[in-house]
Amino acid sequence: MKLNSPVSVTWVAEYTQAKLLGNDALSATGINEIHNVQAGDISFVDAEKYYDRCLHSKASIILIDKEVNIPEGKAILVTPDPFSAYVKLVKHFCPFAPADKMISDTAVIGKNTIIQPNVFIGNEVTIGENCIIHPHVTIYDRTVIGNNVIIHAGAVIGADAFYFKKRIEREVRYDKLESCGRVVIEDWVEIGASCTIDKGVSGDTIIGKGSKLDNMVHIGHEAVIGKNCLFAAQVGIAGVAIIEDNVTLWGQVGISKDLVIGKDAMVLAQSGVPSSLKGGKTYFGYPAEEAGLKRRELVWVKRIPDLWEKVMKH
Amino acid sequence: MKLNSPVSVTWVAEYTQAKLLGNDALSATGINEIHNVQAGDISFVDAEKYYDRCLHSKASIILIDKEVNIPEGKAILVTPDPFSAYVKLVKHFCPFAPADKMISDTAVIGKNTIIQPNVFIGNEVTIGENCIIHPHVTIYDRTVIGNNVIIHAGAVIGADAFYFKKRIEREVRYDKLESCGRVVIEDWVEIGASCTIDKGVSGDTIIGKGSKLDNMVHIGHEAVIGKNCLFAAQVGIAGVAIIEDNVTLWGQVGISKDLVIGKDAMVLAQSGVPSSLKGGKTYFGYPAEEAGLKRRELVWVKRIPDLWEKVMKH
Amino acid sequence: MKLNSPVSVTWVAEYTQAKLLGNDALSATGINEIHNVQAGDISFVDAEKYYDRCLHSKASIILIDKEVNIPEGKAILVTPDPFSAYVKLVKHFCPFAPADKMISDTAVIGKNTIIQPNVFIGNEVTIGENCIIHPHVTIYDRTVIGNNVIIHAGAVIGADAFYFKKRIEREVRYDKLESCGRVVIEDWVEIGASCTIDKGVSGDTIIGKGSKLDNMVHIGHEAVIGKNCLFAAQVGIAGVAIIEDNVTLWGQVGISKDLVIGKDAMVLAQSGVPSSLKGGKTYFGYPAEEAGLKRRELVWVKRIPDLWEKVMKH
Repeated sequence: MKLNSPVSVTWVAEYTQAKLLGNDALSATGINEIHNVQAGDISFVDAEKYYDRCLHSKASIILIDKEVNIPEGKAILVTPDPFSAYVKLVKHFCPFAPADKMISDTAVIGKNTIIQPNVFIGNEVTIGENCIIHPHVTIYDRTVIGNNVIIHAGAVIGADAFYFKKRIEREVRYDKLESCGRVVIEDWVEIGASCTIDKGVSGDTIIGKGSKLDNMVHIGHEAVIGKNCLFAAQVGIAGVAIIEDNVTLWGQVGISKDLVIGKDAMVLAQSGVPSSLKGGKTYFGYPAEEAGLKRRELVWVKRIPDLWEKVMKH
Repeated sequence: MKLNSPVSVTWVAEYTQAKLLGNDALSATGINEIHNVQAGDISFVDAEKYYDRCLHSKASIILIDKEVNIPEGKAILVTPDPFSAYVKLVKHFCPFAPADKMISDTAVIGKNTIIQPNVFIGNEVTIGENCIIHPHVTIYDRTVIGNNVIIHAGAVIGADAFYFKKRIEREVRYDKLESCGRVVIEDWVEIGASCTIDKGVSGDTIIGKGSKLDNMVHIGHEAVIGKNCLFAAQVGIAGVAIIEDNVTLWGQVGISKDLVIGKDAMVLAQSGVPSSLKGGKTYFGYPAEEAGLKRRELVWVKRIPDLWEKVMKH
Repeated sequence: MKLNSPVSVTWVAEYTQAKLLGNDALSATGINEIHNVQAGDISFVDAEKYYDRCLHSKASIILIDKEVNIPEGKAILVTPDPFSAYVKLVKHFCPFAPADKMISDTAVIGKNTIIQPNVFIGNEVTIGENCIIHPHVTIYDRTVIGNNVIIHAGAVIGADAFYFKKRIEREVRYDKLESCGRVVIEDWVEIGASCTIDKGVSGDTIIGKGSKLDNMVHIGHEAVIGKNCLFAAQVGIAGVAIIEDNVTLWGQVGISKDLVIGKDAMVLAQSGVPSSLKGGKTYFGYPAEEAGLKRRELVWVKRIPDLWEKVMKH
């Protein structure tokens, strides 16, 4: 998330009650989770194994739970709970604004776009031209929708990321990382009935131009879907997955987080994909493998009784 | 889809800018995709391997991309892009009509039927007697619902078929086949919360008398569900599947398109069904097999380490 | 379900046209399905194999299809169709009351709770403080929601249990067991977009304090979810399942009915769980086994061709 205007690091230190070390002349221009950091950003880290990654990322200002060596030109903000400090900043710069009507006055809707009855359109949403938004669709704040997009009834665009920090004190507890990202839907996309597409934690969840989603498809936060993909019903895609162009996923396929499905790949129905797949091939099973291999494996399994008999006879 | 009144084939030729060959005295009485054609219908074909099937179907008027021998009494309409010509006709005869209110003036609702708040009912919908339609249900145009039907909150009845033509030019592109079919829900059906039942491309999607669907069940276009079926939560059924009477599908089962599940079959939870199944039996696994066979296979797999040891000792 | 005031067993006998035997001085104080019976309750049984269980349960008044020995102090109500008699009583004491507005006058909503536009809130619902209920959420009658709860758009809380009695007469038929239970959502719960949580048949479906559900999670009737559970998208949990505290279920996991998942268990994505699992371990596959075992099994399956070759060479 970009800030509307730069904010001095000294203000940030005071607001989060953190100890400021390093470059105290900096101004923050954005606030982003590690996956999306850019120069000028505030980010946070609270696990030693990620210190290096975060300190040497593009982030300029790092909320951290220990005094460490500071990379040249950067600032660190030392606080016992960097996660909570980060969430406090997100809530400050991106507060939840209750709606007072079904279609926000700050929404911009293009010409020839049809909004059917009972569509909720949040603050600062933009929708392009020649779209059809069917009844009971919910479009959360700041969503961006292109031209010639069709969204079927009951779809939910831009709900919060499913992202919690696990705390183990006297008992387990999950603290919510507030989402301040967006959903961006490009031109010629069609979204099926009751799909859910979550907003990014701090970046964008993107559905690329010309992609078509059947009913009840779930897309997690910050997933990036390429152009002209085809997802059949009940597909689920976890957060921060990258699906390249022209990928076809058949019904009920599940895609795990933090991976890449290569261009032109096809994944057959009900398959589960725990890690990246190369493009241009067809996959099947759980964990998904090349379909030819997996089919031969199914044949081999059928031969076990034969094998047993041969061994026993011997 | 039946046309409201017959249309001369010469008008159709002119409207689609196609070359008319054969019987130019014909009138079209319907427009249907190949799965649903009847005498008097316009249909289309654009792949040589399907020419014969389409030309010798019941269709009277065929949009086709090549001059071919014309079956006696029929007409062909030659055009370089039969798909687009067909879609142009569908849009003409079955245009999308934006709604101006939550319940269309052309909807017919039977006596003692309870419509809870915030239900969307489209044009020319009919709903029988003694039904309960819960909040936030969406019923698209021309849906037909019988008597004593219960539809739970958030269900979407009659969204468009997920049916696209893949074009490969400079890049992949998907062109939408506009849906002009319907959903027909017979008496005593119960539809769970957030189910999605798509309308037919040109025919009907049917939920047979007395069938019960749990929450989040997806039914694809032109699927025909028999009487007294029981589908547990999160089941998905692809387009043009035929599920005969008394079929039970447990949770998260996936059924592929263009197949038949025989009467009284039962499919256990999470199974995937890629091809037709005979009735009267219980199935399990992916690909689904008779449950007894599949269970024995699971036992055989557990014996591989034993087998290995025996072979190694030898 | 508790009755608002006690009802004499003689009235119940007359209303259901059943033959009253045993203690005719009793008053009924509740009406509950066998899973939830307490002293003072009416319950029903219509299968001989369950007679003992029901007669010796805490229920005081039993609708039954045969004259049997009556446990001391209890009453039986003999009728040829105890199920229908029970349903008749449920409909009498817990009738469906059509809504006349989006938010019932009998709903109680705590301070600082934000109700976004187009939320349906049924009769006698209570919602605590500091909650956010997003657009197009449906909350059926009598639901109880704690403090600091977030419910995302399109979620459906309290739809009817998926519970039918199969009748085989000339043809199969399913008779609905009317639901008169509730959903109880404790403090600090977050419910994702388009989740569905069914009410209990006669008891409560409970989501424990601090639990977080991603989008499109389905929870069946009378399931009891512990504290601080984490369920990823498209998880499905059948009725009467008990999920203890701190359980993590990854995406598209399916949990069968009538079982217990122990505290701190984790079930990996797409797994299917047909029976109870001990706490503190990680599970995987269908049927789900300990993940380490299952992973080794996958390796063994890959060795079948080797094994075959060894045996053939011999």
